[in-house]
Amino acid sequence: AWRSMIHTVTMIPGDGIGPEISSAVMKIFEAAKAPIQWEERNVTAIKGPGGKWMIPPDAKESMDQSKIGLKGPLKTPIAAGHPSMNLLLRKTFDLYANVRPCVSIEGYKTPYTDVNLVTIRENTEGEYSGIEHVIVDGVVQSIKLITEDASRRIAEYAFEYARNNQRSSVTAVHKANIMRMSDGLFLRKCREVAETYKDIKFTEMYLDTVCLNMVQDPTQFDVLVMPNLYGDILSDLCAGLIGGLGVTPSGNIGANGVAIFESVHGTAPDIAGLDMANPTALLLSAVMMLRHMGLHEYGKKIETACFDTIRDKKVLTKDLGGNSKCSEFTADICRRVVDMD
Amino acid sequence: AWRSMIHTVTMIPGDGIGPEISSAVMKIFEAAKAPIQWEERNVTAIKGPGGKWMIPPDAKESMDQSKIGLKGPLKTPIAAGHPSMNLLLRKTFDLYANVRPCVSIEGYKTPYTDVNLVTIRENTEGEYSGIEHVIVDGVVQSIKLITEDASRRIAEYAFEYARNNQRSSVTAVHKANIMRMSDGLFLRKCREVAETYKDIKFTEMYLDTVCLNMVQDPTQFDVLVMPNLYGDILSDLCAGLIGGLGVTPSGNIGANGVAIFESVHGTAPDIAGLDMANPTALLLSAVMMLRHMGLHEYGKKIETACFDTIRDKKVLTKDLGGNSKCSEFTADICRRVVDMD
Ligand SMILES: CC(C)[C@H](C(=O)O)[C@@H](O)C(=O)O
Ligand SMILES: CC(C)[C@H](C(=O)O)[C@@H](O)C(=O)O
Repeated sequence: AWRSMIHTVTMIPGDGIGPEISSAVMKIFEAAKAPIQWEERNVTAIKGPGGKWMIPPDAKESMDQSKIGLKGPLKTPIAAGHPSMNLLLRKTFDLYANVRPCVSIEGYKTPYTDVNLVTIRENTEGEYSGIEHVIVDGVVQSIKLITEDASRRIAEYAFEYARNNQRSSVTAVHKANIMRMSDGLFLRKCREVAETYKDIKFTEMYLDTVCLNMVQDPTQFDVLVMPNLYGDILSDLCAGLIGGLGVTPSGNIGANGVAIFESVHGTAPDIAGLDMANPTALLLSAVMMLRHMGLHEYGKKIETACFDTIRDKKVLTKDLGGNSKCSEFTADICRRVVDMD
Repeated sequence: AWRSMIHTVTMIPGDGIGPEISSAVMKIFEAAKAPIQWEERNVTAIKGPGGKWMIPPDAKESMDQSKIGLKGPLKTPIAAGHPSMNLLLRKTFDLYANVRPCVSIEGYKTPYTDVNLVTIRENTEGEYSGIEHVIVDGVVQSIKLITEDASRRIAEYAFEYARNNQRSSVTAVHKANIMRMSDGLFLRKCREVAETYKDIKFTEMYLDTVCLNMVQDPTQFDVLVMPNLYGDILSDLCAGLIGGLGVTPSGNIGANGVAIFESVHGTAPDIAGLDMANPTALLLSAVMMLRHMGLHEYGKKIETACFDTIRDKKVLTKDLGGNSKCSEFTADICRRVVDMD
């Protein structure tokens, strides 16, 4: 049966602290007896035919087969013309939706409590089109590209997500008062899709107003959907509300079930290899992954253990305010996971 | 002498609560014996030759003469093709810098204390170029325009501002990792200008990182300078940190001393005429104006009185958590201003 099936997941440990936190996650998955078999791959881009940067064929094939990836932080090599690895992965697998649940973590103090929202970012176009020109000396233009198809697709994803995750409202974030045609098109598609999801409340709000309201009272928001750059901004802002990138999970969703889940913090080269890293963001991303795969019980178990360890405050990594090692933090979560059985 | 000279200021009361809060400001200025003579003007756009929307000639003339305006909230008429009044004013007077000091107000509780930063927004180009096209059905592009001249001008303004206001650092906010040419040009100009202000520390930060850091610890920021849209977003976000648009002043600065200071909140039609509005944002904008005109002592006096009234908590408007009327709040500030003499 499905439940007893073993699923293959492509594991991209990444750079810096990536290998440590990936191995922490794999240990916890093992303790939880999660039915996952990892296929480790390195995605560092190589130069393909015609000099185009691409991810190595064996990593691509693994993802094409498994459809699901879990990824640690990647550094972007500074070779001239080298693309951001994140952008390259989004492009290679057409990961059109970036999803970031931001939920206050009990026991981890920030200026806010009861934050419980999800940002859904269009991940393929907008300000990230990469099309730029010099018009005349000293005058440059960048092109923001908005299409009907991508706008409809992300709006549909947002409403589906809301429905499948027992969320009651979707807010479209835009500046259609300024970019009347591009954000206007995005907004129109959101409105159209909203019409077909009568069970979900739909609202629209200017990006600047969202930012203002967000820092004043984030509890008023539920699911937010928006074009690429606005999502880049708002997802980081919201991560800040609940404690930063070290505790915020993220998922990049493509068509036909393809998805890569990732921690969005950096590679932290200064502490790499010192058993000091905090695996929470990658672990919670892996929990998102389990849910995406329908493995809800394993997800719940691991998430509960992680939150219990944080709430308990006895075994925390330095960035979380404790003085334990990554391995100790990991062992504490493993112990709880085992105790739950 | 300069000190005893009477200065003319164009007063644009605006719509909704605009007239009430403007008259509150004028009362407080009178109590402070500020050497200002007001010339009231209505700026509601009219259709000029060729059907172009423009502000009425007598308002334009007044501003051309006085060079200094103080403006309440304006509603944008919903006639088709009617421009945002704010954009029209920025354009008419080439107000290239939007300046918003965000300083925590003692006694007005928010999740943050000790915020003390200034956002400086390029106000004329970028994503606000208004140039948009349909490429083919369902594909739209908006053009973000960045010029060397406007970038240098705003960078110079930011560094001059920092120096003249005893501020020690300027952070350029950008996404040059994505918009390499346009934000790249902006950033290059900031770097160049920074070279000539060795007394001011210069740093650069991605917009998403600024947002994340801002909600985690706003006290790390001082002066921030950025292109138009980023400024739209960050200035509202920062206003939220200190209590919202009801307490945040704003100034729009042009060349040759021309400037319009304004409250950036809405017209609040629901409470218009009910003596319930909070004049703080307009009053603090008027204080910025006094400083811009070199009338520092009057500025200090009025600002102190306003902050004292808020800290005292006895006479506050409803939005500030009290139950006093606009006129009572105004009278309390007037009394303090008079007592200071
Ligand atoms: C690394 C960078 C290209 C990226 C972005 O701007 O999208 C990052 O900020 C993110 O949010 O994943
Ligand atoms: C009213 C609108 C055009 C304006 C903007 O987007 O610039 C407003 O948000 C502002 O910040 O003044």
